[in-house]
Amino acid sequence: MHKSVFGVIGLGVMGKSLSLNIAENGFDIAVYNRSDYGEERIVPNFLEDNKSFENMSGFTDLEGFVTSLEKPRKILIMIKAGNAIDSVIEQLLPFLSEGDIIIDGGNSHYLDTKRRSDLLASKNLHFVGCGISGGEEGARKGPSIMPGGSPKSYKQIAPILEAISANDKDGKPCCTYVGKDGAGHFIKMVHNGIEYAEMQLLAEVYAILSVTKTNDDIAQVLAKWNTTDVSSYLLEITIQILQKKEGDHYLLDVILDKAGNKGTGSWSSKTAFDLGSINTMMASAVFARYSSSFKEKRIKLSKDLNKQVSSLEQPNVEVLLKAYRFARIINHHQGFELMNLASVENDWNLNLSEIARIWTNGCIIRSHFMEQSVAVFKTSESYLEDKTIFNLLTTSEKDISETIVLSLKNRTPLDTFWSAYNYWISMTSENLPANLIQAQRDYFGAHTYQRKDDDSNQFYHTNWLES
Amino acid sequence: MHKSVFGVIGLGVMGKSLSLNIAENGFDIAVYNRSDYGEERIVPNFLEDNKSFENMSGFTDLEGFVTSLEKPRKILIMIKAGNAIDSVIEQLLPFLSEGDIIIDGGNSHYLDTKRRSDLLASKNLHFVGCGISGGEEGARKGPSIMPGGSPKSYKQIAPILEAISANDKDGKPCCTYVGKDGAGHFIKMVHNGIEYAEMQLLAEVYAILSVTKTNDDIAQVLAKWNTTDVSSYLLEITIQILQKKEGDHYLLDVILDKAGNKGTGSWSSKTAFDLGSINTMMASAVFARYSSSFKEKRIKLSKDLNKQVSSLEQPNVEVLLKAYRFARIINHHQGFELMNLASVENDWNLNLSEIARIWTNGCIIRSHFMEQSVAVFKTSESYLEDKTIFNLLTTSEKDISETIVLSLKNRTPLDTFWSAYNYWISMTSENLPANLIQAQRDYFGAHTYQRKDDDSNQFYHTNWLES
Repeated sequence: MHKSVFGVIGLGVMGKSLSLNIAENGFDIAVYNRSDYGEERIVPNFLEDNKSFENMSGFTDLEGFVTSLEKPRKILIMIKAGNAIDSVIEQLLPFLSEGDIIIDGGNSHYLDTKRRSDLLASKNLHFVGCGISGGEEGARKGPSIMPGGSPKSYKQIAPILEAISANDKDGKPCCTYVGKDGAGHFIKMVHNGIEYAEMQLLAEVYAILSVTKTNDDIAQVLAKWNTTDVSSYLLEITIQILQKKEGDHYLLDVILDKAGNKGTGSWSSKTAFDLGSINTMMASAVFARYSSSFKEKRIKLSKDLNKQVSSLEQPNVEVLLKAYRFARIINHHQGFELMNLASVENDWNLNLSEIARIWTNGCIIRSHFMEQSVAVFKTSESYLEDKTIFNLLTTSEKDISETIVLSLKNRTPLDTFWSAYNYWISMTSENLPANLIQAQRDYFGAHTYQRKDDDSNQFYHTNWLES
Repeated sequence: MHKSVFGVIGLGVMGKSLSLNIAENGFDIAVYNRSDYGEERIVPNFLEDNKSFENMSGFTDLEGFVTSLEKPRKILIMIKAGNAIDSVIEQLLPFLSEGDIIIDGGNSHYLDTKRRSDLLASKNLHFVGCGISGGEEGARKGPSIMPGGSPKSYKQIAPILEAISANDKDGKPCCTYVGKDGAGHFIKMVHNGIEYAEMQLLAEVYAILSVTKTNDDIAQVLAKWNTTDVSSYLLEITIQILQKKEGDHYLLDVILDKAGNKGTGSWSSKTAFDLGSINTMMASAVFARYSSSFKEKRIKLSKDLNKQVSSLEQPNVEVLLKAYRFARIINHHQGFELMNLASVENDWNLNLSEIARIWTNGCIIRSHFMEQSVAVFKTSESYLEDKTIFNLLTTSEKDISETIVLSLKNRTPLDTFWSAYNYWISMTSENLPANLIQAQRDYFGAHTYQRKDDDSNQFYHTNWLES
């Protein structure tokens, strides 16, 4: 019997799109979906709808699916992250052979991926935790793919993943080996964290500009921005969103301002807390979504306040552009710093330039700045070490400061803009008032402190009440 | 043989102090410490040093310790939180009888406490997760005690805990039954989160004032503040710290500005992310400590920047006082909101007024405002529902705004002050720009959105490219 070279488990939106992408690229593929819980027709319907692809076969029994694949088997699981992944792995195990490769293409937590890698390694199987970004369209036409696992397993799946991924501007696939065990899912998590703050920054730009401008006027401003170095996919869709009409009004104006989040948005921040990484941009973006969710409370409190901002001040668009550029750089910087710290902590040896490169196309945070970042990380470990970027930040400090002053006058909440400014001021301050915190901790808890006049890293304790 | 009424495991700083406190209050007490790892002399030395307490006996064998206690046994574990707690519980189990009560007095995570409660309940034993605040001095003379567990077990340990705790201004013990399973450790965690932000706010006040004032001048300003409604234990010790001299210089000036943290500081923020609670004050206080820890990076970047703030502007002390009061209220508000959400989520039925009351003495965040809070939560579920507080915030909005403008001019990082201001502006804004975020999510991920003109909570999806 003719064997397929690749298998996909789970025909949800992403699973279907990736399967068609793989089939279209000429690989013989087998797809599987469970046939209970009302899902009986998913596989036959999918095959029927796509019968032009003769290299695609479908299964509703797992054993048949697995045995239809050539060894070592390459099986991509595309189901909701969580316990279901463990359960599918358990169901697969009896049918697998040494050297087979299981790929988890969902948004699993990298620590779960580490755990699963260890489990499968103990059974001489490979586990690849694989971040995939680009949504439905990306999955079908070319996503950004971030696989983590053993280098050996990557070599075997690379021809397929690199064929279906997006390509960068030099024609190279937006797919690269990221690192062992949880590395792929970790960087996908950071990708989503950066995405959260990028979206919030655009929301704040919209809030600042909408004080005195119509949506079409704002779209015009942003369309001009999108011809500069701040251009990005998210800016592009924002321009389209702003212009979208429904009858005689803007659709945006009737959308409820309660932002959803899938819980994974906070993973980056929670991980940053564990690693001691400064993550104010992503954290404030997540908290801003939480603030938005308390809509009823906000309506009540705004009525209690009964405050009219007397005269709204017109924002200077040029200043705002520089402030926006500034804040985006800090956002990317905090994300890449988080990867830097995690790389050391987990011995992943992450190649930040390559990560930036596979994020230049196919994914949600693709942008002109991401393209610039590929070069930055070829010579620097951090954006702040890059002279051009450092100078850009230095010269735009006054612009973001001015933007904040404007927001104070107009009473516009700026969650992430401020975080960007404050991070910059903190990190370029030789002295911070943390000496007082150390003194307080020593005072009430005898936690001891170090001294500025002693390089020996010795710890001191003072009896503060003794005179 | 005469039996003791209470047992303490672990003679570290806190265990010793609590044991002496219990003995001094007339309870017969048995203490235990392991006798390996060089700890052979801890028990005999402790007994020798405190032989005036004839109601105290010491053990280095666990069985002897347990059998020396009257039933139901009441055993307080005072060791480092983590796996060691599980291990001590396991060692204790063979010697315990039905109805015995194990109390964990350390800073355990409330989810661990929940797990341990379930385990011990399955063995007909009681587990009390008990927050204790006040440091060494508090433990010895009267801490604030926050026990969580079954009401039945609380009744049995109440006479001892309420005798050794601090008292509030009406003479009532700063110890109350908090709620079942992890409730006690949860509120201790929030206590520490509030403490983090309180300390950071004082550090920022110090940073703002030190731009143009000497430490003694700042101490003078704060001493005046400490006679007003912002008075607190932390403000009091800050005044003493500012004045402390070492030879001819201020000790504070030579303390290294790298703030430590024990990892538990971020627990509140991580939990807030899980509960969807807005936690910007505590999060920014933790991130500020992280920023401080990158001292070498800061020195380098500040040299690269080579920036002199031209003319430093003198802060207005009256304005700053009002801004500080404002920020402290928001800090407490976010902490109590976190408890509100957790109370519903975990079915704890927390009494916020009682919690505020046991925090009025013995603990690190005791303050005049905490005393006011006891009354606030007798009639309101939230600080913002209290008219006096709401008006105070409304009228001081301009002061915190002015403080932020000053910090921009002087280049003083304000992590928590800004978070307080921004939270207030967000929560009193009927409309936030989250409608754009919902539109973006629907555009690239088909996540759907709700509408302002539809109260039915229905979700909509738009094909954004269709014209």
